[in-house]
Amino acid sequence: MTATSAADFDVDPIDELRDLLEGGSEARLRAFLDGIQHGSDLADLLEQLEDEDRVRVLQLLAPDDPALAAEALAEMEPDEHPEDSLAALNAVQIAAVVAELSDDDAADMIGEMAPADRDRVLAALPHQDAGDIRDLMAYDEESAGGIMTAELVTLRVNQTAAQAIDEVRRQAHGMDEFYGIVFVVDEREVLQGTVSLRDLVTADPSTSVRELVQDPIAVVLPETDQEEVGRVVSKYNLTIIPVVDGGGRLLGGVTFDDVIDIIEAESTEDLFKFVSVSAEEEVRGGWVDAVRLRLPWLFINLLTAFSAASVVYLFEDTLSKVSLLAVCMPVIAGMGGNAGTQALAVTVRRLALSSERSGTPWNVVGKELLVGATNGLATGLVASGAAFLLCMATGANVLLAVVVLLAMLLNLTVGGFAGAFVPTVLERLGVDPAVASSIFVTTFTDMCGFFLLLGLATELLL
Amino acid sequence: MTATSAADFDVDPIDELRDLLEGGSEARLRAFLDGIQHGSDLADLLEQLEDEDRVRVLQLLAPDDPALAAEALAEMEPDEHPEDSLAALNAVQIAAVVAELSDDDAADMIGEMAPADRDRVLAALPHQDAGDIRDLMAYDEESAGGIMTAELVTLRVNQTAAQAIDEVRRQAHGMDEFYGIVFVVDEREVLQGTVSLRDLVTADPSTSVRELVQDPIAVVLPETDQEEVGRVVSKYNLTIIPVVDGGGRLLGGVTFDDVIDIIEAESTEDLFKFVSVSAEEEVRGGWVDAVRLRLPWLFINLLTAFSAASVVYLFEDTLSKVSLLAVCMPVIAGMGGNAGTQALAVTVRRLALSSERSGTPWNVVGKELLVGATNGLATGLVASGAAFLLCMATGANVLLAVVVLLAMLLNLTVGGFAGAFVPTVLERLGVDPAVASSIFVTTFTDMCGFFLLLGLATELLL
Repeated sequence: MTATSAADFDVDPIDELRDLLEGGSEARLRAFLDGIQHGSDLADLLEQLEDEDRVRVLQLLAPDDPALAAEALAEMEPDEHPEDSLAALNAVQIAAVVAELSDDDAADMIGEMAPADRDRVLAALPHQDAGDIRDLMAYDEESAGGIMTAELVTLRVNQTAAQAIDEVRRQAHGMDEFYGIVFVVDEREVLQGTVSLRDLVTADPSTSVRELVQDPIAVVLPETDQEEVGRVVSKYNLTIIPVVDGGGRLLGGVTFDDVIDIIEAESTEDLFKFVSVSAEEEVRGGWVDAVRLRLPWLFINLLTAFSAASVVYLFEDTLSKVSLLAVCMPVIAGMGGNAGTQALAVTVRRLALSSERSGTPWNVVGKELLVGATNGLATGLVASGAAFLLCMATGANVLLAVVVLLAMLLNLTVGGFAGAFVPTVLERLGVDPAVASSIFVTTFTDMCGFFLLLGLATELLL
Repeated sequence: MTATSAADFDVDPIDELRDLLEGGSEARLRAFLDGIQHGSDLADLLEQLEDEDRVRVLQLLAPDDPALAAEALAEMEPDEHPEDSLAALNAVQIAAVVAELSDDDAADMIGEMAPADRDRVLAALPHQDAGDIRDLMAYDEESAGGIMTAELVTLRVNQTAAQAIDEVRRQAHGMDEFYGIVFVVDEREVLQGTVSLRDLVTADPSTSVRELVQDPIAVVLPETDQEEVGRVVSKYNLTIIPVVDGGGRLLGGVTFDDVIDIIEAESTEDLFKFVSVSAEEEVRGGWVDAVRLRLPWLFINLLTAFSAASVVYLFEDTLSKVSLLAVCMPVIAGMGGNAGTQALAVTVRRLALSSERSGTPWNVVGKELLVGATNGLATGLVASGAAFLLCMATGANVLLAVVVLLAMLLNLTVGGFAGAFVPTVLERLGVDPAVASSIFVTTFTDMCGFFLLLGLATELLL
């Protein structure tokens, strides 16, 4: 790999670790774990181990290097259920590891546990920490409150830069997520603004924080959806965005690393929605869950397929007379579906990326209509040529070529229109346009395609 | 919107701005622009204006507030071509605005310009800056070198914490992208490690930097692909990742905000690839470009559709005898295609998210095969029931129900297999699995579906 990191070994480390777990001495296993510099590297390894081996590694680390164990758990994919490994430790080990977790990671992990495990783990923690974590667990896990950390460095305006730096020294010590942004609050904890450690250091020591504080560029409420949080953070390039309540009181902050995870998760979700896979499906999930989550969509698809089939049934008489039409059906329907899906994908992304106020969405529908018609004409001429040759070869009515041209032209036009119109209307209705999964557009183009092909054939060929 | 920012107005600001640009006095226009706190907010507004109005706003800002103008240009969507607005300014204005751009943003923007504009803009800049920007422009724009900034704070190991803080004060002053990470290099500019401003401030002033420096968690080479850079940064939660040459010399750094933009862009690209839309297509692009970029894919799709049609043609005789088969065709083919696309989406994301070493990809194929068979049986039974009723109603051979059941079961199994097998093989071959766009899987399921339905019918019904 082009990126080199402190944890690139000569031997594939997972093989080495597996050997050590099977036969190796505990001393050599410890030595191996000491060689791991970053929790993310250990996370990669743990994800490839069986549950009991994961727990063995964590049990070994908990007393010696709980920080590495905590970092690894925090960096594991949620799909790998790190909370199960954490819950398998004893009270002392749990206390040691959770003490090293940032509060938001701890809340996420404990929130994923079964109620019994949850209570056992919280009982193992110092009363104060358990309380803080419970507070965070109270928020919806997909909201700003659910992903924020409450571990912030905060100052009062009536301090000097020198005092402020001492304060930062005190508060930031051992804080694992401090990106040099300090929050300034009044005596009622209401957010006044932010000041960067850089500005505190750059300023004359006697300068008052009041002179250095800047208005917060943006804030979010705890109930703000995480996707919106991601949009705001990426818009303003923030390392941390403050979370405040209705009264402006500072509750916590969402850091850029959580935002990156959100954006990656949302991108999987959007693709899944697009092809009607439930967002709940875990990419590493088992086959039973996959069946449970996909089957409902397939039954919806079956109903839509029946509606397309019923159109064909209407023209059964025409089909029995001109059997070549059955050969043309998949071409007309498939092409319309593909053109519609292209228009849908571009429109959905356009709606997702554009800010609320970027207007004139109806131009998009016009554009896609034009694109569909142009591509329909181009591909229709080729398909019609092929149909003409087929008719010559089989002695069928050459007017079939005209039918194919018209059906293709019109069906791709319909596809382009539907692909742009459906998500745009959904957006207007305040519905997530991504739910306009491709099956609805393709069903529509199937039905129109069959109706156009068979209807025109009935008119022109019989 | 749930996120409130300093730039939320009572009146919709774009309307206000449009009015001011049409009739308003220049003084009131200036006052309006003074009220905009963040470049990202101005960027949103500029994106909604015509080119000449964008330029008018920038011309007004260039002398008074070039920093706001620069920030707005940097935050505009690349699709909106901010470089055109920049190129439309005069030499003095260009110099003022570019001086406020971070070097990587300047290089990106100038790199997008027509050669003539490019030379004119570079000529307007101080010799030194123009040289630095040329150096950055030399790298592939999708590589680490192409997105890195060369504006870093660097230290030598043989300084004390106190000296280091003075050094940071000097270097970081007016640097717009400083996230509290300082790079430690030797006299040959070789990267020794990093130290955070927080640690410098927290440490005893007399402590040597040597004691505080930490090994770099990860580094990338200038030619590293931006997607890989994104993976590493998000894996290790870095605000900035150092870019070093083969000899370990520090060349620059890629900051988290660029990584967020990359991840968002890649997520659009992945969806586009999936539905065979070119990654080059701009979501806000015109219809001519859309036709140019989509038509080739549609012609590929036309070829694949012909192959599916040819299967139908093989069984024309059977179809003419049992015309109900034409009614079943879209159901069998469509269901197989949808199940295959679901499997494809889940597998592609799984491959994209899993680290190089997460092994046993073949289990995935087995899982999807099982999922396809199970869903095929479930939906097949329902479809077969419908077929049975149709046969009773029309007096057709009820064995058609058996044909439908078998064809559905087998085609969804094929779909699940193909959806998982194709991307997994591509990954093994070192090809991006995302190019396994759905049209190939759906064509495959179309062909198999028609072959199964019509072949089984020929055996069982004739």
